[in-house]
Amino acid sequence: MQDAALLVIDVQKAFDDPAWGPRNNPNAEANIASLLEYWRSKQRPVIHVHHSAEVLASRFHPSRVGHDAKAEGQPLAGEPIFKKLVNSAFIGTQLEQHLRDQQIENLLVVGLTTDHCVSTSVRMAANLGFQVSLVSDATATFDRMLDGIEYTAAQIQTVHLASLNDEFCQLITTAAILTSD
Amino acid sequence: MQDAALLVIDVQKAFDDPAWGPRNNPNAEANIASLLEYWRSKQRPVIHVHHSAEVLASRFHPSRVGHDAKAEGQPLAGEPIFKKLVNSAFIGTQLEQHLRDQQIENLLVVGLTTDHCVSTSVRMAANLGFQVSLVSDATATFDRMLDGIEYTAAQIQTVHLASLNDEFCQLITTAAILTSD
Repeated sequence: MQDAALLVIDVQKAFDDPAWGPRNNPNAEANIASLLEYWRSKQRPVIHVHHSAEVLASRFHPSRVGHDAKAEGQPLAGEPIFKKLVNSAFIGTQLEQHLRDQQIENLLVVGLTTDHCVSTSVRMAANLGFQVSLVSDATATFDRMLDGIEYTAAQIQTVHLASLNDEFCQLITTAAILTSD
Repeated sequence: MQDAALLVIDVQKAFDDPAWGPRNNPNAEANIASLLEYWRSKQRPVIHVHHSAEVLASRFHPSRVGHDAKAEGQPLAGEPIFKKLVNSAFIGTQLEQHLRDQQIENLLVVGLTTDHCVSTSVRMAANLGFQVSLVSDATATFDRMLDGIEYTAAQIQTVHLASLNDEFCQLITTAAILTSD
């Protein structure tokens, strides 16, 4: 873990839009802020990934406030920011090359949303050969509908964590990190 | 859909091992067989992806019977087979190049397991720019445990389909395909 880069995915104001619907884990951002403070205090690498959109109507278009980082995930000067247009942090970006150049093999992943961009990025990181730890309480998602049935964000969160665990990553909690080393 | 390639993921005997635990959708293989027969009758492209393992102890090692395709997903001569070592059909394979070379932009995805290799491959296909339809009743998965709680395969299946739908793919049923065109 001491060698890991903290990878902060899509902690952006666009997700504050109530149109997303009910969300789980309101503490995710506070946990992300704690992890950022801790990682920076240890002078370990912090890497940000921000979602960007080419369509002006998107909440993630660079001209809109939704594209801005939330206060809890605000990058500091000198921390790399990779802009992506799709869910995976590794497609259309130089993130993989950056990690190889910096000889970073371990990733500690936090961010939004658990089942979309976080899951996609964790899966691809693992399949590219990186060792991934996912901070289960520093992620969150939204309720989703299928065939008229509403799946709660909490249910989606736990099922996705169960699918990712051991196959693509190891799960860890914010408290375990802050007290472990 | 007439332009789509049928992408058959990991329909291999290794998944018959009872050690995987309870599974959902026992009809998945029969639906895959029906779709293969239909796709071949229309002379549309069929592409197979098979999981392979370098570790001899793995059920997916090429020397073991688990590596063989199930009867319902048996490739015919001339149908390309891409061997992968990780979950994503696109990492460490020439699948993307093959699709570009053949000018295939649409994929109809079936196979195992919904939340591991199918989800990972669907996500990456979509993020690479392919249009993906996922046949919801031609996929299946297994019960999974997390923190002492067992999540049923049926629950994992529906939650993952809810997360994939509209964001990475369109869901469709076997019957809808067989009766549509």
